[in-house]
Amino acid sequence: MGTDDRAPGRPRSKEADAAILGAALELFIERGAEATSIEQVARRAGVTRATVYRRFPDKTRLLIATLEAAYGNPPRSPRIVDVEQLVAGWTLVLSDPRQRRLLRRVYGAIEDNPELARAYHDQFGRHRDQARREVFERARARGLLPADSDPDVVLDVLTGAGWQHLATRPDTGTADEVERFLRAVLHQVGYRPGRPVEGDQ
Amino acid sequence: MGTDDRAPGRPRSKEADAAILGAALELFIERGAEATSIEQVARRAGVTRATVYRRFPDKTRLLIATLEAAYGNPPRSPRIVDVEQLVAGWTLVLSDPRQRRLLRRVYGAIEDNPELARAYHDQFGRHRDQARREVFERARARGLLPADSDPDVVLDVLTGAGWQHLATRPDTGTADEVERFLRAVLHQVGYRPGRPVEGDQ
Repeated sequence: MGTDDRAPGRPRSKEADAAILGAALELFIERGAEATSIEQVARRAGVTRATVYRRFPDKTRLLIATLEAAYGNPPRSPRIVDVEQLVAGWTLVLSDPRQRRLLRRVYGAIEDNPELARAYHDQFGRHRDQARREVFERARARGLLPADSDPDVVLDVLTGAGWQHLATRPDTGTADEVERFLRAVLHQVGYRPGRPVEGDQ
Repeated sequence: MGTDDRAPGRPRSKEADAAILGAALELFIERGAEATSIEQVARRAGVTRATVYRRFPDKTRLLIATLEAAYGNPPRSPRIVDVEQLVAGWTLVLSDPRQRRLLRRVYGAIEDNPELARAYHDQFGRHRDQARREVFERARARGLLPADSDPDVVLDVLTGAGWQHLATRPDTGTADEVERFLRAVLHQVGYRPGRPVEGDQ
């Protein structure tokens, strides 16, 4: 640790934080985890390498902080009320070209940088997946999903459909197209939002 | 074109072909499309760069030929008879650690090397997807899938579930685990292999 750095939270330090995380996000989207280096991040952020290393001891921790900042920490919508809200949220993400590239880079990091993928899952994915699973459990309880549905499987199916959309559909699709895709997948797994909500079955 | 190369199909030439494609496959799995170069492939194959370039004018065409060889051309099982055979085939692929890494690299190439992903889809994916779609159409006609199923959606769901499995399950899983996963997904989309086959409904 150098002694020339200011106390955390002081304005210059916060500016450096934002510049570093912004540069890291850009580079991660442009090149992926493997081809991004602390050196490049420092150069693009206009700070020294030492300034980056004082905050992030290695590239993996820098990239985790970058994803954390990109997705919001705490997560922007920690409470997902129902399937409809989940569809709305995923539609926003999957119709945003920048988010699409970011997510494909996260998938690409699984192979080259498994610690990043694992840390990302531990810090964000697991938490959100639990909230989503509960949404599907409630939908099943309300009769909006077949009684023999497995919320874990529904979550795998919907997440997988997201990867498939990212892999096979153009990044120029509209929100309407994305929503139709997600609703077709949910219909195929038996989700029927129009069903009268009477009770558990 | 050099004049020192032998006619195609002569033993030495076939050996060089195999060495080049084998080296390219190894490097693609180890490093991905972006980090693989013709230079590295030549070195690992024990041939000159010129020998590689005489066969493949650029890296993308080399990698397409590599995938073609890895998956078999013509494809090893061009005819997929029914959903059960499809499950058996995918189970083999998804329980093979090397194939898993290869497929994640193919996904990773979408971002860095879209021509490769597109060419791969045009030459292989499209053809196989059509065969799979027909399998789901027949399953629906036989009452093994709900009457309102969309074969395209079922295919997106199953392919997506494959990406999800590759992203979230360890590469050490057994064929039994993979098959249970695929069957759970198919069950969720309404596939009921045990249903009496009486006719269209």
